[in-house]
Formats: sequence, C-alpha cells, structure tokens
Amino acid sequence: MNYHAPVDDIAFALHHAAGLDRALAEGLYPDLSPDLIEAVLTEAGRFASDVIAPLNRIGDQFGTPFKDGTVTTPPGWKAAYTAWAAAGWNGLAAPVEWQGQGLPQALNAACIEMWNAASMAFGIGPVLTMAAVDALADYGSDELKRAYLSKLVTGEWMGTMQLTEPQAGSDVGALRTKAERAPDGSYRLTGSKIFITYGEHDLTDNIIHFVLARLPDAPAGTKGISLFLVPKFLLNGDGSLGKRNDVRAHSIEHKMGIHASPTCTMVYGDDGGAVGYLIGEEHRGMLCMFTMMNRARLAVGLQGVAIAERATQQALAYAKDRRQGRAPGAADGSSPIIDYPDVRRMLLTMRGLTRAARAICYATAVALDRSHLAKEAEARAAGQGRASLLTPVAKAFATDIGVEVASLGVQVHGGMGFIEETGAAQHYRDARIAAIYEGTNGIQAIDLVTRKLPLEDGAVMRAYLKELSEIIERIRTANDPALGAIAERLAEALASLERATQWLLARLKSEPNAALAGATPYLRLFGVTAGGCMLAQEALAAQRLANGADTASRVATARFFAENIAVQAEGLERTITQGADTVVAAFPDAAA
Amino acid sequence: MNYHAPVDDIAFALHHAAGLDRALAEGLYPDLSPDLIEAVLTEAGRFASDVIAPLNRIGDQFGTPFKDGTVTTPPGWKAAYTAWAAAGWNGLAAPVEWQGQGLPQALNAACIEMWNAASMAFGIGPVLTMAAVDALADYGSDELKRAYLSKLVTGEWMGTMQLTEPQAGSDVGALRTKAERAPDGSYRLTGSKIFITYGEHDLTDNIIHFVLARLPDAPAGTKGISLFLVPKFLLNGDGSLGKRNDVRAHSIEHKMGIHASPTCTMVYGDDGGAVGYLIGEEHRGMLCMFTMMNRARLAVGLQGVAIAERATQQALAYAKDRRQGRAPGAADGSSPIIDYPDVRRMLLTMRGLTRAARAICYATAVALDRSHLAKEAEARAAGQGRASLLTPVAKAFATDIGVEVASLGVQVHGGMGFIEETGAAQHYRDARIAAIYEGTNGIQAIDLVTRKLPLEDGAVMRAYLKELSEIIERIRTANDPALGAIAERLAEALASLERATQWLLARLKSEPNAALAGATPYLRLFGVTAGGCMLAQEALAAQRLANGADTASRVATARFFAENIAVQAEGLERTITQGADTVVAAFPDAAA
Repeated sequence: MNYHAPVDDIAFALHHAAGLDRALAEGLYPDLSPDLIEAVLTEAGRFASDVIAPLNRIGDQFGTPFKDGTVTTPPGWKAAYTAWAAAGWNGLAAPVEWQGQGLPQALNAACIEMWNAASMAFGIGPVLTMAAVDALADYGSDELKRAYLSKLVTGEWMGTMQLTEPQAGSDVGALRTKAERAPDGSYRLTGSKIFITYGEHDLTDNIIHFVLARLPDAPAGTKGISLFLVPKFLLNGDGSLGKRNDVRAHSIEHKMGIHASPTCTMVYGDDGGAVGYLIGEEHRGMLCMFTMMNRARLAVGLQGVAIAERATQQALAYAKDRRQGRAPGAADGSSPIIDYPDVRRMLLTMRGLTRAARAICYATAVALDRSHLAKEAEARAAGQGRASLLTPVAKAFATDIGVEVASLGVQVHGGMGFIEETGAAQHYRDARIAAIYEGTNGIQAIDLVTRKLPLEDGAVMRAYLKELSEIIERIRTANDPALGAIAERLAEALASLERATQWLLARLKSEPNAALAGATPYLRLFGVTAGGCMLAQEALAAQRLANGADTASRVATARFFAENIAVQAEGLERTITQGADTVVAAFPDAAA
Repeated sequence: MNYHAPVDDIAFALHHAAGLDRALAEGLYPDLSPDLIEAVLTEAGRFASDVIAPLNRIGDQFGTPFKDGTVTTPPGWKAAYTAWAAAGWNGLAAPVEWQGQGLPQALNAACIEMWNAASMAFGIGPVLTMAAVDALADYGSDELKRAYLSKLVTGEWMGTMQLTEPQAGSDVGALRTKAERAPDGSYRLTGSKIFITYGEHDLTDNIIHFVLARLPDAPAGTKGISLFLVPKFLLNGDGSLGKRNDVRAHSIEHKMGIHASPTCTMVYGDDGGAVGYLIGEEHRGMLCMFTMMNRARLAVGLQGVAIAERATQQALAYAKDRRQGRAPGAADGSSPIIDYPDVRRMLLTMRGLTRAARAICYATAVALDRSHLAKEAEARAAGQGRASLLTPVAKAFATDIGVEVASLGVQVHGGMGFIEETGAAQHYRDARIAAIYEGTNGIQAIDLVTRKLPLEDGAVMRAYLKELSEIIERIRTANDPALGAIAERLAEALASLERATQWLLARLKSEPNAALAGATPYLRLFGVTAGGCMLAQEALAAQRLANGADTASRVATARFFAENIAVQAEGLERTITQGADTVVAAFPDAAA
C-alpha cells in the first residue's frame, strides 16, 4: 500500500513534544508563522505521498544497474528527483544567500522524515547533499562556495560523503586515500573508497564528492585527515561543466535493501590523480566532517522514524482489513485482527515506539536551531549541548526501533508479510541499514557515554534530566485518572536513568571497559525514558486542546508506552550497573 | 562462510540441559549408548556442514523457478537430498517396522537443528515429511500405511501439510476446500490452498499431500474438518506410480527468504476432483493435524535455534578477524573488534539466546520421548504434559530469538552485513518466516496461556516451576563466587514468572482479553526464565566435568544470561500484570 504522510501527527509532535511551540514563544523563529509551518508540511506531505512513495517498490525491484562505470536509476526516479529539487525542498534549511529557503532545521527534519518514509532509497541521497551543503557553507572558501554551493543547495547537483575504505570503517583514522599538493593550490587524490552512497548516478549532471584523504606529511590517525571537494566534472572558468575528473565508480554493491540507492566503490587517480579542493584547513578534515556527520546522523535517525511510520501505517491498515475468526467478546462472524489483544499490542508498540523516536529526533532538530538562532550566547550554547547530547540517541534509538517496528509489521501481516509483493518485507530489509551507516549504533552508544555525558562536567545531561523530571511532575500534578500510571512508571524509569548515568560517569576513567559494556543498554534506557516523557507531554497537550478522538489516542499511546515499554528501564539499569563484569571478562569462545 | 555443526555443544545441551542424561539413567532409552549418540551426531554434523551448508547461498540466489506447473530446485539440491535420504536421516525417529531407525526424538531434534542451520530452505521440507509420517503412523489405515508409509519414512517421497487458504490462515476452521465421498470409499477434493511449502518440486518422484478439507455435511468450524492423503501420482495395484492426480501447483510465491523452499498455491479438482484418502475419522481431521502441527512446531523452533547458531558462528568469526582501531587496554595497533565490549555484548547475547533456545527445544523433544517410551502411564502422562507445555515456548521463543540473533549478526558485520555476499543478510531474511509459519508466535503465546497453563488445573505448569526452582536451589547451594549472581537473578525471574502465571490463570475466564493481552510478554518471560535456568544447569554440569575452557565458557554464558537478559523479567511481569488495561482499551486510531 502507499504511504500517507501523517502531517497532523508530525505537526503535533513538532509543536508539543519537540518544543517548537516554546521556541516560537521565545522568539527563536521570528519569521515563522503557524500558517507557514502548516503549508510547508502539507505540501511536503503531498509530494512525498503522491510523487515519491509510488516509486518505492519500483526502486526495490529495479535497483540501480551498473554498466561501464555508469548507474541507471529506476524508471521515474530522475523525473521525481528533478521535480523535488525544483520545488526547493533540497534547500529548505539552507542559507537564503545561496538560494536556500532559510527555514528551520526542525521543519526540515519533518520533511526528511516524509521523504524517507516515501522511500528510504530516495531520501538518503538528499540527506548527503544537505550534509555537504552544511560542511561547505561552514568551512569552504568563498571561491568554492561561489562555484558549488548554490548548485548543491538547489539540488541541481548532488553531494556525497566519502570516509570508508576497506580497512577504515568505524576507525576512520585508518584511511589511506592520498592527497598531494599541486602547484595551483589544488590537490591530486589517489586511492579508493567503499560503500559510497549515491557515489554515481544519473539524477544530476554533476556529483560533488566530499572526500577524506591524507597528505604525505600528515600525522597518523584522525589528526592527519583532510577534507576535499572533488567534483565528478571539473568546472570551466564560467562555471559550466568541463573535463571529467579522475574519479570513477568501479562497481556497486548488491545489498539487502534500499536497492534504489546506488552504493559504490570509488576509485581515485587511475589517470594521474583526481583534482580536489581543500575544505577547511589541512589535517583538520575531521572537524569539517563532524559537521556533515552530525547532520547526517540526525537524518538517519529520521530514516528510522520514517520506516517505522510506514510500517505502522501498513500494518494498521492490514489489521483493520484482514478478518480471521471471532475475537473475544465479538458477537459472531469474522473479526478484523486488530480486535485481538495480541495484534493490538503489536500495533500499540509500533505506534508508541515510532512516536517516541519521532519526538526525540525533532527535539534534536529544535536544539540545533537554538544553537544557531538564539540571540544569547548562553542559549546558543545550551542548544549546542542539547543537540550534541541527543544526536546519538536520535540516530541509534530511532534506527533500532525502525528495525523492530518493521519486524513487527511483517508479523502483523502473518504469511503475507513474508511475500515481497505485500511491501512489509521491503521495510524490514530497508530498515536494517540505518542501524549501521553513519556510525553504527554501537558507535553512537559509545559516543553518548564517553563524549556526551561528560559534556560540561555532566551539566548538559543534568539539565536534560531536570527537564524530563518537570514533565513527569506536570503529569503527577494533573492527577487525572485517564493518565493511569504514567507518572509513576516514568518516574521510575527516570530514576533508573539517573542512577545509570551516575554509575557510568563514575567509571569512565577508572573502568572504561565497564562503562563501554553498558553503552548500548544505556542508550536504550535513555531512549525509552526520554521517549516516554515526550509522549506524556503530547498527552498533556492533547488534553489541553481537547480534540476528542485525537486526545484519546495520544493519552492511550502515552499510557501504553509508560506502562508497557518504559517498564523495561529497571532491567536495563541492572544490565548496565550489574552486568558489566560478565561482558568485560574474557569472551568464552572455547566451546564454539 | 560455511557452517560447522557444533556437535560438542549440541551433545552437551542434550545431556546436561535437556535431561537426556537423566532419561538415560532412568532407562527411558534402553538401546541408546553414549557411543551411538556421539556417532549419530557426528555423522549428521558432517553431512550438514559438508554437503548441505555449501548449497545455502546457491539456493538463495537460484530460488525455485516455476514453469508450466513444475518447480526446479537449485543446482545440487536433488543430489544432496537423495544422498541425505539414502543415509537414513529422514527416518531417524520413525518406526523400525516402516524402515525407520527408531531413534529418540531428542536425537532427531539435534539433527533437525543441524539440517536447518546448514540451510533452512533445505531443512523445512523434511520437517513436513516427518510430520506427515507421524500423522500417518498414528491415524492412517493399515492399507494407507502399507502403500505410503515406508516411502515417506525413507524420504523416497516427500510429504506436505496443507491447511492454509486465502481466508483461512490462523483461523483454520474457515477453510472451504471440499471433499466428496466417492463410491469406492475414497474422496474427491476440489478447492485451493496457499502457502504450501514444498507443494511441488523435483526432489522426489512422488509427493504426498496431507490436506484438510470439508465434507458436504460437515459441521461449521474446526469440528467439520477432515484430513486426507492426496498423492501427486496415484499408485497402481503393485504400488508403482500410476496416473497423475488432479492436484497441481498453480504458482509459487516470491518471498523475502528461504528462496530455495518452493511455496506453492495448490489447485484441486480442475479435472473433476483430486483423489484423496481419509486419515482418521471424518470430521476429526484437526485431531490428526495437531499431531503433525506439534511436531512441526518443535521443528520450526529448532529452525530458530539453527539460524541463530549459524548467525552466531558467522558473527563470531568475523569479530575475531575484523580489525579496527585500538580497543581499551590494548597495547597498540589494530584490535579485533571482539575486543570491544559493545561487540562482545552482542556476541554474548547471541550465544546466550541461542543456547537457551536450544536447551528449551531439546527438553521438549525429551519430554516427547518420555510421553511415548516411559514404562509407567504416569510418567508418559507427565511427558505428554511437559511436551504440551513447552511446545509453544520452543516454537515462539526460539524463532523470536532467531530473528533477534540474526539481526545482531548483521550488526556485528557493520556495513558488510548489509551486503548480500557476506551471508549475514540471508540469515536475517530467512529467519523471519519461522516466527510466522506453523502458527504465528502470537498464536503460540495464546496457546500457552489459554490451553497449556490450565492443563490439569495448573499442575503441569506447577511441576515445571518446581523443577526450575530446584535448579536455582542447586546454584545457590553451590555457593561458588564464579557463578556470580546467577541464583539471585534467576530466583527473581522465577518469582516474576510465578506471579505472572497466577495473575493470568486468575483472569482466563473472568477477563479473557486482559489475559490475552499479556500472552506474548508472558511467553518471553517463560523463555528467559526457563532458558536462564537451563544455562545454569549447563554451568553446573560443566563445573562437574571440569573441562577447562569449555567450563569457563559455559559458566560465563550462564552468568551473562542471568545478569543481563533474565533481568528483563520484572519489566515483562509488569507489562503482563499492569499493562493489560492499555491494550484492552479501544485502539486509538483516530490520529493515524
């Protein structure tokens, strides 16, 4: 079935869970009216549902045939991409001076979710172009910006992000691609890269590669890496396309999912060296790349939300339509399977996890906006801290639940879920990559525990915990029986999160392995606690707005989540604080 | 990479976790020597690893092309199947009088795991033949047995199990395939079936379909269903193959996984009616089918163990080989990723879940043996009760963890996991079906709660809980620091299981929806508690045997499981006993 962008739900999450309303009230977005927000979301939803979504299955079946160094995208993809770019979507949050729309990252996050729910394979391409725009805008020379930035902002050209080499995956510092200084101030790159998303394709006339490489005199490790802009076609003096650069796609991967996203092995310098231009300073490439990576990480988190939303929609529609037997309490005849409590639990789990992950991702985007737009330096710093803290959670929690929700979506369909034509299986296959790329979820968890928790001596995390406790306090104060045990369950979850945080911080230096052993369960604990609080916040807002069925739905989702999912918190806490020994001990591999 | 049958590990689980040693001591298997057990497992392991496993990827890529009603199996499959059947594996646990080996179901279970670890698509075919053998042996007329049973036991012919129709999936009672009485005492079937595993293929000269259908005067629902044997080729008087019967494969499904297992739509009676022979009594087909289904359910649980084992082996090998960065505490250079605590947690989770599920499945098989072989009627009844209780847990817990472990296996591989040639992705795709077919895992959970817990007024479950508590008591009494907090954590898990059991039993009649809402988390709670206890039992046995590294490995696995996985118990208990209201309340679908 097709995807219908849940524009109302997305707007509600932005306004009431992610803090857009508060940011609007504070004056963070002086030019942003409620009407504009609604218009943008509605139009994006229409484009995603009507134009992109119908291409998702075609893309899965057609893939991206590779021949003689060229990639053919599936039928209809180029037209859709061109229309999408022409409508200005690629530059939604990009600077106005470079032909962007200058709208908030928060709105862009909502749109990125919709593009990816329509098709993850479609959505991941622009994600990388947008990340490239950020890096170029922040660190590029004026000359490079003038030559490339507007074209990337409008999407007339697409960008790629090239870190990975066979020996350098999670360990970026091990990369070997070489860059040598040329007399004209440019560089010549030789080497190869693997797993390059949209490394070659026919959607745009030029492709601008953002490539990490190492200068001959570079220090070892990540401190010796520089970032280069390497266009597929060099530009003539007038900006028109000139000579083909010495970078080529050598092959594409045969992947389990996102078949319409070409994943390329790239070769540099078969013919003497690809011309590249330095971005930022020599040996400081990781700094620039982190700008790209953080944006891309949030966007990949949004892919998790997106695939979860699409899987949930499809499962819900199936469960209402498919009839089997007589559900308990039904008068007779054939009940829709949604009437069975076990199926309902699956659907409620899917919806709860999806909405929780969405709220976390959008809150990250609002924090990013605050880090740029707030008038006071202190507020900007707070926004930066919050965005840094939440980014690994947004990426890993949302993509983990993307896999889980897609798997439940298959299960709701029964045997039909395993048949490819139903579509549920594609979501399950597509979802899996998001937990891996842009830094595996294990890397995200380690980033959260070792770099984000200690930010400002723990003050960034403390401020967040305080905010969560205030939400719980508002639920408690409401003292409304309809809210069930939300306050109690979330308070318990928060207490677990607080204790686990203290435990980890106390061991970061003295017992790093013990802290690292708990990183993944800790990130999950963070996600279920924060997600539960955000859904509770949605429930309170919904009660205030008193929208009948919608209010009932949000209260029910928040209750279900608190009473069925947030209760995992204590077990997770114990895994973190009492289970590390069993992980740190030598791996028992003698018997396998 | 290829699969290496973990024969020692399998033997250990049989002897020390599943209760084979105790059964041997009790005299349940008078003809079974330790040497024979070892010889059978070793030879099965060799065949699985050397002959079947190398076909797994070929099968995935080739699939089973369908043309003009015929199915072609992948290159090498027919030769492998023929050799496998000729070696007597199909009839391992079948009656000697029908050319079987008469060996225990427990041994057969171990072998079924190995066939399916080698290739799920290969293994599922014989699973259905073996189930057909059971039904025919238990309920078939002497004439039918003489004509068909030996051929099915030897695997010269294969069997199928045909329940599902488009409108009749989980609700078998809704099936419409018609059977009409013919003057000669046989029947004529018309109608169609879907999702028929190995419904058509070229592995054997004849295929014997076991088909549920409805007589014209049948009562509605499951009480009006009869079971028929419908051969693809009718037999001549001398038993040789005669006329083609009026049953044909109409098409095959394009599935996400197990590509080499042909899943067929079958059509009966295009030419007047397929000749069928009644098995058991008219309208009592469900009784016979339950014999088939219970065996098949255990076997599908073993598929979950199998795919988990294979995914674990592959991830472990990769994690030892793949080097990235410097792990904490490492002197320098590039550490194998197994040295990172987060990767180690994934591997320990994979191993712990796999071994726990294996022990549960094997224990189910030993109970099945006891239900047939015990001298005393009371012991047979106890075996029957235990097998009935454990079968849904074996099926659903093992296949749920099959999906989870396969997913972790992809994650351990990082980007390589998403590339099909690595093989981890195939496991993730293949694993998914086992949670669906032979009764979805939701159906298993409902079966456990509504039919199995109340067996003998709860006495069957009470006896099992008592047995688990005795294991915990043995751990406590050992009072060995090496066992860490195993006793405490498992005692807590068991207490949660006991309270949840009481809660559900108290509500089965008065609030059926509340009980049903907790069925899936309850089955999980059952699985982690029982699995944890069985791993603890393995740890104790390993300490007794003092096998150095193997002992250390088993103790470490049991500790990891108790302290990191069994701690989920309390959260699951609360989901069951405090979360039902949020499920039973109307589904909040207004906003989606």
